[in-house]
Amino acid sequence: MNRLAAFLLCTALTAPAFAQELRATGDLGVVVERATGSVLIVDQSERAAIGRVEGFGDLSHASLVFSADERFAYIFGRDGGLTKLDLLTQQIVGRVVQAGNSIGGAISDDGKLIAVANYEPGGVNIFDAETLEQVASIPAGGKALGLEDAAGRKFVFSVWDTGETKIVDMSGAEPKITTLSNIGAEPYDALVTDDGRTYIAGLFGEDGLTSIDLWAEVPEPRRILPHYGRGQEEMPVYKMPHLEGWAKAGDQIVLPAIHHHEVLWIDARTLEETGRTATHGQPVFAMARPGGRQVWVNFAHPDNDTVQVIDSMTHEIVGEMKPGPAVLHMEFTSRGTEAWVSVRDENKVVIYDTATLQPIGEIAAESPSGIFFTARAHRLGL
Amino acid sequence: MNRLAAFLLCTALTAPAFAQELRATGDLGVVVERATGSVLIVDQSERAAIGRVEGFGDLSHASLVFSADERFAYIFGRDGGLTKLDLLTQQIVGRVVQAGNSIGGAISDDGKLIAVANYEPGGVNIFDAETLEQVASIPAGGKALGLEDAAGRKFVFSVWDTGETKIVDMSGAEPKITTLSNIGAEPYDALVTDDGRTYIAGLFGEDGLTSIDLWAEVPEPRRILPHYGRGQEEMPVYKMPHLEGWAKAGDQIVLPAIHHHEVLWIDARTLEETGRTATHGQPVFAMARPGGRQVWVNFAHPDNDTVQVIDSMTHEIVGEMKPGPAVLHMEFTSRGTEAWVSVRDENKVVIYDTATLQPIGEIAAESPSGIFFTARAHRLGL
Repeated sequence: MNRLAAFLLCTALTAPAFAQELRATGDLGVVVERATGSVLIVDQSERAAIGRVEGFGDLSHASLVFSADERFAYIFGRDGGLTKLDLLTQQIVGRVVQAGNSIGGAISDDGKLIAVANYEPGGVNIFDAETLEQVASIPAGGKALGLEDAAGRKFVFSVWDTGETKIVDMSGAEPKITTLSNIGAEPYDALVTDDGRTYIAGLFGEDGLTSIDLWAEVPEPRRILPHYGRGQEEMPVYKMPHLEGWAKAGDQIVLPAIHHHEVLWIDARTLEETGRTATHGQPVFAMARPGGRQVWVNFAHPDNDTVQVIDSMTHEIVGEMKPGPAVLHMEFTSRGTEAWVSVRDENKVVIYDTATLQPIGEIAAESPSGIFFTARAHRLGL
Repeated sequence: MNRLAAFLLCTALTAPAFAQELRATGDLGVVVERATGSVLIVDQSERAAIGRVEGFGDLSHASLVFSADERFAYIFGRDGGLTKLDLLTQQIVGRVVQAGNSIGGAISDDGKLIAVANYEPGGVNIFDAETLEQVASIPAGGKALGLEDAAGRKFVFSVWDTGETKIVDMSGAEPKITTLSNIGAEPYDALVTDDGRTYIAGLFGEDGLTSIDLWAEVPEPRRILPHYGRGQEEMPVYKMPHLEGWAKAGDQIVLPAIHHHEVLWIDARTLEETGRTATHGQPVFAMARPGGRQVWVNFAHPDNDTVQVIDSMTHEIVGEMKPGPAVLHMEFTSRGTEAWVSVRDENKVVIYDTATLQPIGEIAAESPSGIFFTARAHRLGL
């Protein structure tokens, strides 16, 4: 066998070891295919899917985080599954079904720990990010939710049943837990601001929100925006907007109104309302394009075929698109030049140029929901 | 030849193509070795150098940007060299000496264009990021500097000799150039805020700074901080602090004072001074840890063996370290858990835990200056 023949043979032989060519990970992403328990791995630069991986269980309400090196995705399934995906080999490299019903997770700021919040049996489980071995179990006396990472190897979450927020400090040998009582009735979701400083919990059982300064020596709950909430409306909790749908645009916060066709503008410093913009429907996500120049909004059924774009300086709607039926999620490329939009009922992801608002690409996907780009690995409070 | 033999042979044969194992790029970085025209490629997770690459020319005042996929670094050398480095194969894949004396560059928001600002012969050259073919040359009538990227495939730079700022729109077939006159005498450096909205130029020839709102329909220069500058001091331009040494911590901006042993705190909204903190020496870089909880400061000769850490809430100094002689630069891991500090005259990079302020690692490097982590690929205005 001459060298060329050996070379050609070796290319085939080594295929399993080098299933993927040498590839950078800064422009990769994961699209959740909610109905089939699968995900697409996508390449932003190619505007294409580069692989599909199956076997994630129930992804009907899934989210994920990325490892610090942007190689691995940790996918949190509704069925309590925590699955570790290698984006380079496109293989599942670890999976534990760690609870009966989980609703999201977070990665510690140092990238070493994965925490998962559970409805059944409640509480938070914490795993080694490398091995997925469980390293701690934090009981909560109820349904854990609004789980976020915070600086200093901490996690913060709230408890539906008890109206408490817990700060879990994992920087020492044992977990150190601080419990804040009386954050309000039935917290249902939360967010941490992009500087990692402020934890804000949304309440289902009463109006208003609760803000906690995580930098304070003794963090204390503080009520804000007393009129924000469902009021006397009878509505199920899943109709409440995701708090991750909040956006910061410059020194304004943009909020989806609850049960109304509008978004609210809030002064980020005073947390007082400064204006409203009427929208096409009831907003679900109001997401700021990186830099905050525009806010993109999608809507609840039956208006969920539409996306509107709002100018954050004038608060006026400057664009409206109809990507197709059931727009579930949007994700921006990290410097804001493109927006990727999942259209569940047409089995596609549509890619828009944020300057022209024109579609510039499309990717086939099975009932796509969440779209997650690896740049999230570098952000606090996700 | 049996299959095993073929496999072993192929491993050797394919070594050049697969010089590096499969590797993610989200935690890589580049350390400039200023005296030897070389760079170290470092791995943040391993806290180690994983390779040295030579042949970059004069790196005595070098900076660099990363491609959107975090695979390539574009290094701007003092000698006018623009060199493209593949972080995965650890090879130089392109190099042009595009001017006599260049002082920095930028990558367009869509990642397609690299712009370089030149002292000699002046002006800005723009290159295809893929091939390094020149696509445009923007004359300036003098020394170009303070070159930054802006949203919408734009670049912004200023001209020392004419006191102008130019906005170069590369979104169409031909460059569209807008010139703003009268931005002030002898602009020497500039920055763009992290939302990509505000361009601020520092002036050597007079006191004060000039701010330009890049989102305005007709951008106009506006004077701010009228007392900031060298005043009547006789001093060379290289003693002026880099404007990239400005930091945003929450809603404050932190500025190194010129020729004084203090940093200034500015309200980010009103751009008025709100306080000062006395420091160990004359600050060079005042850099906010991601999230803004701390500001790390290094100093000019002869105080350049020291780093101080300031609490951004209290404005008090909460830590002081002596990494060694000639601390030239600092870079934080993307979620702020570590700070990497280059110590030129002890040929090392020292790694600090930002929670304990203790050293947790050290990497040998030849006269290291700038440290750049790939997460920069995802930021605006660098």
